[in-house]
Amino acid sequence: MNRTSLFYSVLLLLVIILTMGSVTFAREETEELNLMPVPKQITRGDGLFRLSDSFTIAIQGKKGGARLGKAVTRTLRRLSDRTGIFFSQDFIRPGGNVQDADFIISCNRQGKLILHEDESYQLRITPEKIELSAETDIGILRGLATFNQLLNADEKGYYFPSVEIKDAPRFPWRGLLIDVGRHFMPVEVIKRNLSGMAAVKMNVLHLHLTEDQGFRVECKTFPKLHELGSDGFYYTQEQIKDIISYAADRGIRVMPEFDMPGHATSWFVGYPELSSAPGRKYTIARKWGIKDPTMDPTREETYVFLDKFFAEMTALFPDRYIHIGGDENNGRQWNANPDIQAYMKAHNIPDNHALQRYFNQRILKILQKYNKKMVGWDEIFQPELPKDIVIQSWRGQTALIKAAQKGYQTILSNGYYIDLIQPASYLYLNDPLPKGALLTEKQKKYILGGEATMWGEFVSPETIDSRIWPRTAVIAERLWSPGSIRDVDDMYRRLPVVSLRLEELGLLHEKNYGMMLRRLANSHDITALKTLVDVLEPVKGYKRGSLREYTSYSPLTRVVDAARPDAVVARHFRELVNSYLSGNKGTKDEIVSWLNLWKNNHGKLLIVINRSPILKEVEPLSRDLSDLAGVGLQALKFRNEHKKPSEEWIQENLIKIEKAKEPRGETELMIVSAVEKLVESSK
Amino acid sequence: MNRTSLFYSVLLLLVIILTMGSVTFAREETEELNLMPVPKQITRGDGLFRLSDSFTIAIQGKKGGARLGKAVTRTLRRLSDRTGIFFSQDFIRPGGNVQDADFIISCNRQGKLILHEDESYQLRITPEKIELSAETDIGILRGLATFNQLLNADEKGYYFPSVEIKDAPRFPWRGLLIDVGRHFMPVEVIKRNLSGMAAVKMNVLHLHLTEDQGFRVECKTFPKLHELGSDGFYYTQEQIKDIISYAADRGIRVMPEFDMPGHATSWFVGYPELSSAPGRKYTIARKWGIKDPTMDPTREETYVFLDKFFAEMTALFPDRYIHIGGDENNGRQWNANPDIQAYMKAHNIPDNHALQRYFNQRILKILQKYNKKMVGWDEIFQPELPKDIVIQSWRGQTALIKAAQKGYQTILSNGYYIDLIQPASYLYLNDPLPKGALLTEKQKKYILGGEATMWGEFVSPETIDSRIWPRTAVIAERLWSPGSIRDVDDMYRRLPVVSLRLEELGLLHEKNYGMMLRRLANSHDITALKTLVDVLEPVKGYKRGSLREYTSYSPLTRVVDAARPDAVVARHFRELVNSYLSGNKGTKDEIVSWLNLWKNNHGKLLIVINRSPILKEVEPLSRDLSDLAGVGLQALKFRNEHKKPSEEWIQENLIKIEKAKEPRGETELMIVSAVEKLVESSK
Repeated sequence: MNRTSLFYSVLLLLVIILTMGSVTFAREETEELNLMPVPKQITRGDGLFRLSDSFTIAIQGKKGGARLGKAVTRTLRRLSDRTGIFFSQDFIRPGGNVQDADFIISCNRQGKLILHEDESYQLRITPEKIELSAETDIGILRGLATFNQLLNADEKGYYFPSVEIKDAPRFPWRGLLIDVGRHFMPVEVIKRNLSGMAAVKMNVLHLHLTEDQGFRVECKTFPKLHELGSDGFYYTQEQIKDIISYAADRGIRVMPEFDMPGHATSWFVGYPELSSAPGRKYTIARKWGIKDPTMDPTREETYVFLDKFFAEMTALFPDRYIHIGGDENNGRQWNANPDIQAYMKAHNIPDNHALQRYFNQRILKILQKYNKKMVGWDEIFQPELPKDIVIQSWRGQTALIKAAQKGYQTILSNGYYIDLIQPASYLYLNDPLPKGALLTEKQKKYILGGEATMWGEFVSPETIDSRIWPRTAVIAERLWSPGSIRDVDDMYRRLPVVSLRLEELGLLHEKNYGMMLRRLANSHDITALKTLVDVLEPVKGYKRGSLREYTSYSPLTRVVDAARPDAVVARHFRELVNSYLSGNKGTKDEIVSWLNLWKNNHGKLLIVINRSPILKEVEPLSRDLSDLAGVGLQALKFRNEHKKPSEEWIQENLIKIEKAKEPRGETELMIVSAVEKLVESSK
Repeated sequence: MNRTSLFYSVLLLLVIILTMGSVTFAREETEELNLMPVPKQITRGDGLFRLSDSFTIAIQGKKGGARLGKAVTRTLRRLSDRTGIFFSQDFIRPGGNVQDADFIISCNRQGKLILHEDESYQLRITPEKIELSAETDIGILRGLATFNQLLNADEKGYYFPSVEIKDAPRFPWRGLLIDVGRHFMPVEVIKRNLSGMAAVKMNVLHLHLTEDQGFRVECKTFPKLHELGSDGFYYTQEQIKDIISYAADRGIRVMPEFDMPGHATSWFVGYPELSSAPGRKYTIARKWGIKDPTMDPTREETYVFLDKFFAEMTALFPDRYIHIGGDENNGRQWNANPDIQAYMKAHNIPDNHALQRYFNQRILKILQKYNKKMVGWDEIFQPELPKDIVIQSWRGQTALIKAAQKGYQTILSNGYYIDLIQPASYLYLNDPLPKGALLTEKQKKYILGGEATMWGEFVSPETIDSRIWPRTAVIAERLWSPGSIRDVDDMYRRLPVVSLRLEELGLLHEKNYGMMLRRLANSHDITALKTLVDVLEPVKGYKRGSLREYTSYSPLTRVVDAARPDAVVARHFRELVNSYLSGNKGTKDEIVSWLNLWKNNHGKLLIVINRSPILKEVEPLSRDLSDLAGVGLQALKFRNEHKKPSEEWIQENLIKIEKAKEPRGETELMIVSAVEKLVESSK
């Protein structure tokens, strides 16, 4: 075994040297493999391993434990589900006839769910045998995720390509934040997202559990927290344990966030004495935005409460890290409270920042007492804090790098705000440790990774998957794969395949699209509606909340909610036009057929709109799509006939195009820029 | 108020008399309403109630309780979700300004979750106001289900038609059995099915919790039951409480079934001493069919065990009824055990039937001790039992009626076995109390209703919804609506609309179809595959298990699993052909266009099949579809040109057609009979 490994290592090294740089190499080799994240090192071999119903998997030795057994069972079932093969036997457990198995798995020990645990693995597939080895069972899980992505087929049947992979993550913290405070997400939503995370090798689920709009976990010490602060939508402690165990089975840590001292209205419904406005009564916040209610950092009772609170919560959540939020405290309640002002004077606390620093120091002591490490948003960063805290940056790389320079551990979230609907390419190129960052090798290690952040203002259990997936897979790749893997086209090539694989895990990002369109159209036939929504995207950034006033009960079932980030058809069309305008005439026919489809769509959709008033708000977008398609066709015709359009025609249509860029129903038409290019080019 | 009610009652009576029989009347009036189940009495009024964002619902008086408040909140949210309207306020709680509300709800008391509870309601919609009243809050829930189905729209917006409905169920027991023993179904599967049940006014969830293949509920007294008998797939008691509370919120009883003395292998894995084969060791059964392992009814220890077991389970499940199964005991273990044979001789027990009677009597005593009533399958029926037990008939109406004649309460399941994939029309016309049944009025009351039975051999959490829905809605109508409502065409007209409404509740019957096809085709483009699978159905009856040997781990992801009962396209095509052959020439063009689509489909699908080996098994069906479409086109051409085909042509094609009737991959091509008719008619 070891000799073989060595042989392959040397071979791999040779191949890497011969192909002049592993980066280009990996890029080429994965082109047809559809792996995401791309492994650190990959070598293709000759031939392939054929799958048959006598296929067997075996675990070598007894060091893997129960998690490994469950993961292997899941792998076998999934293989059976995808191929339809009735495997003649279950996997071979330790002690069985391991050497006869087709697929042999071995690891040295059970991994711990801690930061910096070894997640590396080696996967070798030859026509005769598959071998997966790792230091820890968690490494094996990551290897099985790769294995799942390698299944392929031809006319003869299913197979795995011959390949040798040596893989390890670039960053140790690869997280997804789900905000269950603003809109509650039932356990099954969390579980299917954990399955998705595991498939792309993410390892931290960050549960944003408390917000002005909801307190989402059962608290036995202070039951009014969840009883009065949640509208009945909270996780019982049994459910939390279930989530943690489901995550642990997939090698994923669960870090809870209890946001304080701000973002805490829901705490005050049951315990108003915690707030900085004495005597005020609270109800759960129903609207979005930064609220005034803030904990009172000057009363000892606050810390007595929080000590008991954390005593319970630190026991419930086994992870070493606890997130205390700490963001967006507007200070109004502190400014308005004479007792707080007096306290600040008496204790030489110059401003609200210093007061929050004082609060953080007190909370830190409590967490340390329970053997936990503190995580918080940028705002908690202050030189007095010990070096084992973690700063999560929503402000950006500059803040991140500054903290790392001072020796603080950091994770990046700025640029990974998946609720802001930026394109996958934007998320993909956002690097926690960009090339040329002014950091020493030691300081670079302080940058632990990043987290995709799914804030909850505009998502329901029905739509959340479509905001998270498949795009979070590209963030997962950024955090796992070598920094040199940055080919946007190749990422977009692999993304639809990855998306299908994610759907098989129970994620609803693809199938709820049809369902939402059927409800919107009020019928089974959604053709015309789909043609429109396929080229729409929700507005970007923070625009949606500014265009209309939302509450936590506003419907999230409109076209803007069915429309998805990275509208695939629109991106494809923009690429066709770019390619055409750069001289590739071969794309013209397809451009014309899309434009014709759109040109004729409005009439058809109008019939649907007239019996489905919920669609009224996108009627102008539908009309614009048809109009602009007509303009695009004309522009093409001019070009084709080598004629120049009149100045009036150009001006008139550029105005039309400018208007069509305006969002309607909080959605945007994503083919406008391409039509604009066609018109501009006809000049 | 009362005076108004009286006025409307009299008016309604008048209308009914004038229209000569409420039955024909209800049929006509619901034609455009898409209600399912059809209410007992319905009168259309003039005008309509327009929905706006100032719409308010109010609950009158304080007799409704928490369940009603939650139901009204759900109704308002759902209305908002479907219309996209941002309602300006929440519903008005008791004590608020009720009379100003648009929609006023009132009931006299909180209903109990017991058999024969009052579920009647009256719903009156006028252009100015909506009023819903009932004796119990459960009646209000049923009325809200109707209200949800009444939402309509035109170019001006959303509205509810003016209508007066007086409604009450025909049968008090309208159930759905879900077998979680053979394949476990996670809590969310149960919850979304409970939502579906409530939408069509069903009121009993029958959980078949134990089987040879699995023991699915946590048992604290005998933990080896779930620990060793479930592969880890069981409901914790917290989850059972969660399910019961979710069901109670929807006015649905939850009846557990613990199948005994047979179907009990999973019990014996942990407690082999319960079985009738002393010293034998057991593992969980992996294959389907009737198994030998049976409890030993001659040992006192068996009853000591079951007494403790039921002490725990009767406390966990609040419903008055407990199902003890009692079916399909093959008696082999009893015959082979000399101690049991000796016991029978000593106690004058002549045969195994008598021995099982003895067992039932003992179990009955235990259940009575815990204040529960016994339910069992046909086999438990025996004259010695008290009259408050309930016989569930899988054998059919004859057994049912015989039992009712003897004064026993019965529910029908024969003919409602939704796992057998019979068409919805078959389920729909299956009546627990058929016209002309030889029963007195008093005896008729013993027929309590029926249960759709979803046996679990061939369903997974991914496919189960597609077997249950939308078809169970037609059973729900059979059990709720007057027996005279039996128009199959009208049922099929309403069913797709009901199906869309059910999908909105989170059911996956529609959206998992696309997902499964995408996995099968291994791509986003599923057009050709969908064209084929749209006209396929799984084989009927018990054929599937006989065509291939399945285990509980066999994949349920093949074409047979994606294919659904009541293939809509195929039924539509058969109707077109029937209509054409009975003289309606107007359907010819559509017939031709379907046949052309199918004729050209095989070539396209072949490309997909060649890269997706899981599809190989339906390749011959795909070829048959194209071939038969060609034959159909030729037959039409002969007819059109008033030519007669040659005898050879007819014979050759009838042979081809006969062959195409054979199932392949356990699926059937559902357009063969229509093509056969076209060929026959060309003679």
